[in-house]
Amino acid sequence: MNYEISAVLLNADEVKALQEEVGRDSLMGKTIATMRKEIDAFMALDYDVPGHGEAGGYEHNRHKQNYNFMNLAGRLFLITKEEKYALFVKELLSLYADKYLQFDFHVQKNTNPTGRLFHQILNEHMWLMYASLAYSCVEQEMSDVEREHIVNNLFQPMLEMFTVKYAHDFDRIHNHGMWAVAAVGICGLAIGKREYLEMSVFGLDNYAAGKNEMGEGGFLAQIAQLFAPSGYYMEGPYYHRFAIRPLCVFAEVLHRHMPELDIYNFKDKVIGNTVQALLATAYPNGEFPALNDASHTMGITDMGVQVAVSLYSKHYGLDDNLLGMAKIQNQVWMHACGLELSRAFEKAQNERPDDIGLPFFPSVELNEGPEGHNGAQGFIRMQDGKDVFQLVMNYGQHGMGHGHFDTLGITYFNRGQEVLREYGFGRWVNVEPKFGGRYLDENKSYARQTIAHNAVAIDEKCQNNFDADRADTVHGLPHFFKVDDDKVNGMSAFANDHYQGFDMQRSVFMLKLDELEAPLLLDLYRLTAEDDKTHQFDYSHQYDGQIVRTNFEYQANQELDTLGENFGYQHLWNVASGEVKGSALVSWLQNNTYYTWLGTSSNNDGEVIFTRTGANDPSFNLRSEPAFILRAKGQSSLFASVLETHGYFNEEFEQSVNARGQVQDVRVVAHNEVGSVVEIETQQSVVTFMVSNQLAATDTTAHQVSVDDKTYQWNGFYSLEVQAK
Amino acid sequence: MNYEISAVLLNADEVKALQEEVGRDSLMGKTIATMRKEIDAFMALDYDVPGHGEAGGYEHNRHKQNYNFMNLAGRLFLITKEEKYALFVKELLSLYADKYLQFDFHVQKNTNPTGRLFHQILNEHMWLMYASLAYSCVEQEMSDVEREHIVNNLFQPMLEMFTVKYAHDFDRIHNHGMWAVAAVGICGLAIGKREYLEMSVFGLDNYAAGKNEMGEGGFLAQIAQLFAPSGYYMEGPYYHRFAIRPLCVFAEVLHRHMPELDIYNFKDKVIGNTVQALLATAYPNGEFPALNDASHTMGITDMGVQVAVSLYSKHYGLDDNLLGMAKIQNQVWMHACGLELSRAFEKAQNERPDDIGLPFFPSVELNEGPEGHNGAQGFIRMQDGKDVFQLVMNYGQHGMGHGHFDTLGITYFNRGQEVLREYGFGRWVNVEPKFGGRYLDENKSYARQTIAHNAVAIDEKCQNNFDADRADTVHGLPHFFKVDDDKVNGMSAFANDHYQGFDMQRSVFMLKLDELEAPLLLDLYRLTAEDDKTHQFDYSHQYDGQIVRTNFEYQANQELDTLGENFGYQHLWNVASGEVKGSALVSWLQNNTYYTWLGTSSNNDGEVIFTRTGANDPSFNLRSEPAFILRAKGQSSLFASVLETHGYFNEEFEQSVNARGQVQDVRVVAHNEVGSVVEIETQQSVVTFMVSNQLAATDTTAHQVSVDDKTYQWNGFYSLEVQAK
Repeated sequence: MNYEISAVLLNADEVKALQEEVGRDSLMGKTIATMRKEIDAFMALDYDVPGHGEAGGYEHNRHKQNYNFMNLAGRLFLITKEEKYALFVKELLSLYADKYLQFDFHVQKNTNPTGRLFHQILNEHMWLMYASLAYSCVEQEMSDVEREHIVNNLFQPMLEMFTVKYAHDFDRIHNHGMWAVAAVGICGLAIGKREYLEMSVFGLDNYAAGKNEMGEGGFLAQIAQLFAPSGYYMEGPYYHRFAIRPLCVFAEVLHRHMPELDIYNFKDKVIGNTVQALLATAYPNGEFPALNDASHTMGITDMGVQVAVSLYSKHYGLDDNLLGMAKIQNQVWMHACGLELSRAFEKAQNERPDDIGLPFFPSVELNEGPEGHNGAQGFIRMQDGKDVFQLVMNYGQHGMGHGHFDTLGITYFNRGQEVLREYGFGRWVNVEPKFGGRYLDENKSYARQTIAHNAVAIDEKCQNNFDADRADTVHGLPHFFKVDDDKVNGMSAFANDHYQGFDMQRSVFMLKLDELEAPLLLDLYRLTAEDDKTHQFDYSHQYDGQIVRTNFEYQANQELDTLGENFGYQHLWNVASGEVKGSALVSWLQNNTYYTWLGTSSNNDGEVIFTRTGANDPSFNLRSEPAFILRAKGQSSLFASVLETHGYFNEEFEQSVNARGQVQDVRVVAHNEVGSVVEIETQQSVVTFMVSNQLAATDTTAHQVSVDDKTYQWNGFYSLEVQAK
Repeated sequence: MNYEISAVLLNADEVKALQEEVGRDSLMGKTIATMRKEIDAFMALDYDVPGHGEAGGYEHNRHKQNYNFMNLAGRLFLITKEEKYALFVKELLSLYADKYLQFDFHVQKNTNPTGRLFHQILNEHMWLMYASLAYSCVEQEMSDVEREHIVNNLFQPMLEMFTVKYAHDFDRIHNHGMWAVAAVGICGLAIGKREYLEMSVFGLDNYAAGKNEMGEGGFLAQIAQLFAPSGYYMEGPYYHRFAIRPLCVFAEVLHRHMPELDIYNFKDKVIGNTVQALLATAYPNGEFPALNDASHTMGITDMGVQVAVSLYSKHYGLDDNLLGMAKIQNQVWMHACGLELSRAFEKAQNERPDDIGLPFFPSVELNEGPEGHNGAQGFIRMQDGKDVFQLVMNYGQHGMGHGHFDTLGITYFNRGQEVLREYGFGRWVNVEPKFGGRYLDENKSYARQTIAHNAVAIDEKCQNNFDADRADTVHGLPHFFKVDDDKVNGMSAFANDHYQGFDMQRSVFMLKLDELEAPLLLDLYRLTAEDDKTHQFDYSHQYDGQIVRTNFEYQANQELDTLGENFGYQHLWNVASGEVKGSALVSWLQNNTYYTWLGTSSNNDGEVIFTRTGANDPSFNLRSEPAFILRAKGQSSLFASVLETHGYFNEEFEQSVNARGQVQDVRVVAHNEVGSVVEIETQQSVVTFMVSNQLAATDTTAHQVSVDDKTYQWNGFYSLEVQAK
């Protein structure tokens, strides 16, 4: 038996090293034990290669389980030398080969092409990648007849389907395309047809033309084009973590079988770069923010991210944050890369256990666009004792065809929960009675609309009029991203093309004031119309929990109407509203923490409207969630607000501490094209905060804003002054 | 030093035995280590004896922490012999003695008398009990002057306040009264004034009359009268677990200092009995059902329950369920009783670790009333693999002045969550801006009303017309409670006095059918009016999660109105409604599990109304929660429904299995004063279910119900027949 020849991902020395981990208490040892336990339970069941089923249903899941467990079994055979794992792969693949060509193609239900096993070929790509990896581990155990049966009746027809029948999809630069090229390339290598590897790497056209270089499609084009220089993926972390797995697995295969590509150094180490970028988006608890049409459920424990962290450790170097990630994951990739991480973790645990805590990623601005010139996504983190506060602002690109219209939208996370929240997508993934588990109408009519986000909606419309093509032509304009100070971190950006005839700028900060128990969020949102008409500005806040108090009178409506007719407003119940003079205070309790928001605008009178989703939702597709809106009217507006995090509530222990907070008022002093000046009043002091509104400003630009007989002057992007009362 | 003299709860031998646990890995060893860690952190702070504050606020919590940590410090001084713990108690008590009489009484905000430290004397009782216990552990370390200062300026004034100024409250039979007598009795013993012990045990009147026997008030009267023969406490488990701590602590003190009472055998072992009853109400995850004006946050990890489990183990014997409880608690009472449990747990863990899993309490019917004749609370549990399904029905007494009007109401729990839910109380405990953390108006206007529960509301009214005095005069009538069968468990009861002019009977079952993955809930709710008019019956279901599908058309309302004007209906938005012919299907997804409800009534046409709380809630005091109601109209009605638990959903892993369930229909065949007959149709079979409606029936009573040309006959309370389709 010569494992070197067959296994496309592991050589004999590596297998030997992995064998030594069996039964050990290392991350790798634990991984192997966990995997064995899971697969042994699955292997206790009868084989089943079912026919067509619904997305997410039994058949779908069974095919998924089959490929996942074959993938594991292949490697476990090499690592444990137990024949039963090889037998499992051989027999199950043989069953698939018996049946595959008997299955017809699924009936097409959405825009994706269908496979013979799955309702969309994406899943069939995934099947092929894992099954090929498994095959490569055990094919030495098979007779020629067995091999030929599988190759001729299963792998070869699949390869042809992907590269001929669905050739038009194969070269598409997209997260699905990553799976296509990885599957085809790895399968080609596994069955000794290197031409498929070449198609996958260089694209179909270049392969046909005999050019061994990056083409229009193929893996090299994918990784060269999918990511911005920062490594950010424009569809957001949810789709990024989905694409990262075939990317990493295929990269490792190429590292071994096409060393001439020097894949890990390709395009300035784009692979390492994009892994870091993905990790850098995560909230302190390891979950990914649901940027751009995503669910809230994905995080760094995802298997793809595990593969990425292991791979990074091996090829790009280790640091304590990666060890911290591994600690959360509590598992590694069952591969030589994972072994590297496992050994480093073991060493650190033995030598300096106190150093390996939760990872703390520094604040980071991830640019967007092929050259990094199409705006950015900003992530600011501030430590608060053991807790981390994270503020995310989108001032980059539209997230492809399904993107959300939420430029300048923010989310905010602290004390283990998302406070200013992203609704996420309108979809019940794979829940068949919910429109087959596909995207729901309400995804368009609500979830992607501007009013669904923590942003300002103008004149009850959506950014770019909900036109994705138009949205693709514009992007945010970064103003500053300042995270070096201990006390004040902030970022600011413009979006001057998203509502026609309006310029918008949002500047968000986290401030540490001595008298407050936690960092304070300060938010300045400035809008100016080109015309001189009066416009309506709705400054929306998606919160969760129970309203505790306000500082203004409001009317809880005796009957509920929708807040508007279109652009998501038709899904909002107008629950209560009240006029406000000066600053409005809205305080709520979310789980164990109190939050107090104080907001105002430069326009004289405002209105606060409390809403709840669920109107015009005839199939109960939307979750019922609350929000409140500060509405102002004028030719322009500067909204200023602070959000204080304070106190503690625990019903079980009947504790409630500091339920009211310390901040008393927020006032707009002035704003013009030069800058904005606001004041925050707390119990003990008045903070004057000045921000540059000049896109061309630098760290040294002098700013001056006069109001009545007072002049405010500062240099650089912002300045603040704290005065005791 | 002679510990025997001072510590009222521990003798020298016991202290010695506890000393041997320090540093060990036993439950007791871990408890001591945890307590030390907590108290050491607290002792690192400066002393603080603050003035008046709001309920649940800093001052309130600080006094609470002070007494809790003094209580721990006293025992830790004995166990660890570390002088610092004694010093902490001595100095802090002395500070209290300096200040106590300088504090005036709190301003009274509710009906409870106020103390000098707390807004209600209940908390001051708690303070005194713990402080006295602490004092008894360290007083040997004090000089006469120190002792006198504390006794004269702190303990004695408190004792006088409780037994003279607030004498009227001292003898009240109530959970608050339990704290009063325990505090006064223990303090009297600690300071060598045994007269207070006698007042506490025999009541003020008997003490004054020199009678050493159970009086109108006092501990003996409390424990003789508070509990039904079953041990159930009429205010429900939330208040029960609150009263159990002083009960157990004081009982242990009396066991040592008034052995002539033979307290653990008093009144047929009422103490052991009531501890068992409390534990027997808990849901499988250890939480207590929020019966009767309670929150959902209390469970068996509560410190009072820990004391109770330890005490029971010592004085009434151990079994594997108690060991399972200790496993969940992962702690024991830091006392000789807890040591007994800790040793037993250690032994079991060493000798037969696999036996000690989660506790599984058998199904139990807990009777109510002084003689056990005032109805009961029924708890049926059925094992489903590793999971336990629990069904709770209230057919007992009204839960005192604040009781809920929900006789025949049910709650249902499985797969780790409450499925048919109890709203709990309308109160944000100790959240000062929410009406001082006290009960809110909405507690009366919504939470206590019949429509807020899983029950039938007649003619849009509340049981007993929301008259607590009237409610106190009636109770449920148990019909049967059958839990011996492997496949069918059920209970049935009547409530013929709760709506004037109506008889009601509810019969609920859990059925195991071979073709279903989990037990099925079957619910028959029968109502008959004495008059011959048409009435409206609203059969309400409080669920949580997202509606997945229905089998009928409904209209989602374009604007929302309240469902009614009064009796809780004014708080319900009428979100959507539809007419139903035959059976209505409502399916929803709660976290990872699908639920499908199929319901019908004997009346021809029904209506399903989807509601959400939040109407007429001007201060956002209510949580926004959904429900659906099957509304039927007639002179009488038999509602029949099934609730199927099925499938699995996991968004992270994109899995959805069996989203639709197997049950297809439920039909009312017949119902009259003899019995009810219904049919359940699944994919494979038809189940005919027959239930006795005769209050006087026995296990052998012959029943016969004829409809058209068919006669249904059975003996006993119920019968079922399964026929393959």
